[in-house]
Amino acid sequence: MSKGIGKEFMEKTKYKYLEESDQDKGLPQPPLELGYEANSVLIDLPPVENINIKSIDLRKVIESRKSLRKYSKTALNIEELSYLLWSTQGVKQVVSRPATIRTVPSAGARHAIETYLLINKVDGINPGLYRYIALSHKLMEVNLDPEIDEKISNSCLRQDFIKNSAVTFIWTADVYRMKWRYGERGYRYLHLDAGHICQNLYLSAEAIDSGVCAIAAFDDDEINGLIGLDGENQFVLYVATLGKTIS
Amino acid sequence: MSKGIGKEFMEKTKYKYLEESDQDKGLPQPPLELGYEANSVLIDLPPVENINIKSIDLRKVIESRKSLRKYSKTALNIEELSYLLWSTQGVKQVVSRPATIRTVPSAGARHAIETYLLINKVDGINPGLYRYIALSHKLMEVNLDPEIDEKISNSCLRQDFIKNSAVTFIWTADVYRMKWRYGERGYRYLHLDAGHICQNLYLSAEAIDSGVCAIAAFDDDEINGLIGLDGENQFVLYVATLGKTIS
Repeated sequence: MSKGIGKEFMEKTKYKYLEESDQDKGLPQPPLELGYEANSVLIDLPPVENINIKSIDLRKVIESRKSLRKYSKTALNIEELSYLLWSTQGVKQVVSRPATIRTVPSAGARHAIETYLLINKVDGINPGLYRYIALSHKLMEVNLDPEIDEKISNSCLRQDFIKNSAVTFIWTADVYRMKWRYGERGYRYLHLDAGHICQNLYLSAEAIDSGVCAIAAFDDDEINGLIGLDGENQFVLYVATLGKTIS
Repeated sequence: MSKGIGKEFMEKTKYKYLEESDQDKGLPQPPLELGYEANSVLIDLPPVENINIKSIDLRKVIESRKSLRKYSKTALNIEELSYLLWSTQGVKQVVSRPATIRTVPSAGARHAIETYLLINKVDGINPGLYRYIALSHKLMEVNLDPEIDEKISNSCLRQDFIKNSAVTFIWTADVYRMKWRYGERGYRYLHLDAGHICQNLYLSAEAIDSGVCAIAAFDDDEINGLIGLDGENQFVLYVATLGKTIS
């Protein structure tokens, strides 16, 4: 059924096939991040400038990085979580286009990715599913179902180490933020951008004695449903578990 | 013409549509990297363990990273180039599956990406197009056409700063290395993997007083043709310029 879809995708996202983008048509740019209900439960994250993270040499981190699937039972603290969110999606500046300038690059500074977190073990935060609100550096409660870890793990083809992670990052596409400018070719860029983000998580984890394992094998419909995404305008791009190393 | 291809690609690369992979069918695994003719011109790269690179703090690098499109006229030296290739695609180990373990993660350790380099300003290396031979940490001459910089720049929609870069990295997919295991879903993973690699280049550049600008806007047919790729089994995924910062 799917035979040749990859080739067809690469072919039809060539410039010669792209239609005029909504930006070219003068249509309004979508918001810089997803909105949320006024009654949402928000949690302030400690400002990164006050967080002390041990200094660690870039080259050494790159050389020693490896995927880690077994984690200690130790929880992260909220400062460590704040630092990881900052390193992967932190907004350094909002420029006038408007666009966000973040700790990772993004095609045309579109930054069309949202971060959901399955929190299992972070001191002071109830386990559950959250969303990172990058513009104000906060967490928003999404779903505190006590079985959400089991469900998310099952949706990732039963990769059970998700349940043992301290936090699992789930990066999702808010497609129109990318498509508005780049049309169908933007689907390539969403995946490239998710790769940038995941690499920063891999490296940053090392500074807090943690390890990461990226996961791209998931049942799209199942995981999108759990998070509350329609799978079309918003969908999961990439997942990564993180937890403290066993010493 | 291309309307809806991104959505269709995401849909048809769901597990429920994937056919049995060639790995599942017991077909032989493709080689770990592209081969080359016996009479190819190869250039030894200095071993990374002997290369002294200044220590630089990971968090500071992540926070200060930004895309750089204007470069000084200063050339890189071959040690710096060797270090950048190592940081982005260096092979740390060949394990028995067989698979390569590299300085970046890759889905199922498939590492289906090759690195081509447009070299403009590297001491001791003639300008031209090269390929990185990761397993033996060497460069292979591909094309010393004196106008190759102009042609590559034109193929990237005339992003002229390519010509002023010291080196431009061109990451290409050798699709079957990924498809053999993951089928059509592998096209997602190729892009995620290219994102990991590019992020390491962004960060590593800072340690040698250089900057990077990622480019995903190119005429696929034109750039694939220049490099000698068929556009189907092998094609360009991502491009990034690099050069010394102007002090």
